[in-house]
Amino acid sequence: MSAVYDRVALIGLGLIAGSMGLAMRQHGLAGEIVGTARSAETRDVAVGLGLCDRVTETAAEAVKDADLVVLAVPVGAMEDVAREIGPYLKPGATVTDVGSVKKHVIDAVSPYLPEGVDFVAGHPLAGTEHSGPHAGFATLFVNRWCLLIPTEGARPEAVARLRALWEGMGAKVDEMDPEHHDLVLAVTSHAPHLIAYTMVGVADDLRRVTDTEVINYSAAGFRDFTRIAASDPTMWRDVFLTNKDATLEILGRFTEELFALQRAIRTGDGQQLFDYFTRTRAIRRGIIEAGQDTEAPDFGRGTTRE
Amino acid sequence: MSAVYDRVALIGLGLIAGSMGLAMRQHGLAGEIVGTARSAETRDVAVGLGLCDRVTETAAEAVKDADLVVLAVPVGAMEDVAREIGPYLKPGATVTDVGSVKKHVIDAVSPYLPEGVDFVAGHPLAGTEHSGPHAGFATLFVNRWCLLIPTEGARPEAVARLRALWEGMGAKVDEMDPEHHDLVLAVTSHAPHLIAYTMVGVADDLRRVTDTEVINYSAAGFRDFTRIAASDPTMWRDVFLTNKDATLEILGRFTEELFALQRAIRTGDGQQLFDYFTRTRAIRRGIIEAGQDTEAPDFGRGTTRE
Repeated sequence: MSAVYDRVALIGLGLIAGSMGLAMRQHGLAGEIVGTARSAETRDVAVGLGLCDRVTETAAEAVKDADLVVLAVPVGAMEDVAREIGPYLKPGATVTDVGSVKKHVIDAVSPYLPEGVDFVAGHPLAGTEHSGPHAGFATLFVNRWCLLIPTEGARPEAVARLRALWEGMGAKVDEMDPEHHDLVLAVTSHAPHLIAYTMVGVADDLRRVTDTEVINYSAAGFRDFTRIAASDPTMWRDVFLTNKDATLEILGRFTEELFALQRAIRTGDGQQLFDYFTRTRAIRRGIIEAGQDTEAPDFGRGTTRE
Repeated sequence: MSAVYDRVALIGLGLIAGSMGLAMRQHGLAGEIVGTARSAETRDVAVGLGLCDRVTETAAEAVKDADLVVLAVPVGAMEDVAREIGPYLKPGATVTDVGSVKKHVIDAVSPYLPEGVDFVAGHPLAGTEHSGPHAGFATLFVNRWCLLIPTEGARPEAVARLRALWEGMGAKVDEMDPEHHDLVLAVTSHAPHLIAYTMVGVADDLRRVTDTEVINYSAAGFRDFTRIAASDPTMWRDVFLTNKDATLEILGRFTEELFALQRAIRTGDGQQLFDYFTRTRAIRRGIIEAGQDTEAPDFGRGTTRE
């Protein structure tokens, strides 16, 4: 495949940017990949692992002459980065990001971008509970969705080119508006993460159930929760603070439903429980049929990692 | 390995009993394995898959001359089975079960067991979201815990023999009293399952987020929840109805914590969120160090299934 961009700048070198670097190199999607991260150690690791061709100390240097700039820092750090790089962006460049929240990022970044630069926000729905430059792998995005949210005024050809990059890395691409994105993700990702964090915290608090027991006897349910609750604390703090309204709305719905099921347990209404559990099974079947997961007990995770 | 029991009767032929049958045959732990299930189709499948040597139409026939009787039916069906088999149990036989709740099962089954029969309740902490005779595999219990709850009067030699069977199938064995078991499992399994069911139900209800979107864009958090929420509805209805007090207590704690985190989101208290998420990460590390899961993105699931 010929390069989609001559030069790509990765701002932040964690799981997502690192995986993008490896995938772009594997498929020859970028002429040169320049990376930067605040920590010198991360920059050294990134070069050592081949996540990018070279690193710079600052984001301002990294974006010089870049055709595509990828903002891959925690959502709460996007505004500072945008302020720093704004004056150094090449005319005609495209700026994108990989944050889990879109309305906030667009509001925070857009004011700093000059005329003639296209901002096409993005969100690859892929990840693991690991973070940092060591966590990346080239096949992370294969058969996963990447949602693109073009901002007002972004040229269609800039959107098409970014789409080609993501498709080149194996992703399926869809477009969405920012408010709808934030609501959908509140349901499918943000609320579930807060719930998992909460349940793991409750287990930790219970003094009658010693830590060793909780750990030794962590059957399927709790074990899966702990994996979710091991995700990067900085990233998730920022997600909840910046997608506040949608997350709180979904959590309100969740609590309402939970109380109804608690009442069914208390009153011994087995039929209500059975019907509810039967209904939720169907969603799982839908996910498997949509190819977002597999029937196999390893969920296909083992097959997408190199 | 020489047989631990001359004849084993499996009452119910789902995921757990089927896996026991395959594991016992693979390791030569039982002279003969007799199985039974209410459905003729299940019995046919079980013989076809080699889960047992032969099947009987009734539980009463299955337990004849059995040295070990394994009750592997939903918790809510245990009492009926005990009533049926009580008169046909061989003197000196051991009765065990594989239910997820222990106090209720012991109370329901014990009254029907004659003198001279040892009841050692059990709970293998292993499973998948699949159910039925097709779901079983011989390595399901390898390196997993099986908790044994000997009832009053059970002879130590009967407990030791059942322990030897589980260890022969690859499990680690621990003993516990029924009340403590039910509390620990409410934390590590029962409450997490109800929470996952609830979250999946909420997603299903939201008309603004179409089904296709919820399914297509089910990122890690929600996708893991759907797997948990795809578990057998009958089994889980019975678990909640029979471990009511401990489950409701843990759910009460959960709601309290969730409200505290919701308030932190609403007031923008990023430090509280960050500290909480950092703490829950440590539990995950503990689980990995305890060998109950792996760092690998497939959780080691792929490595334990044949």
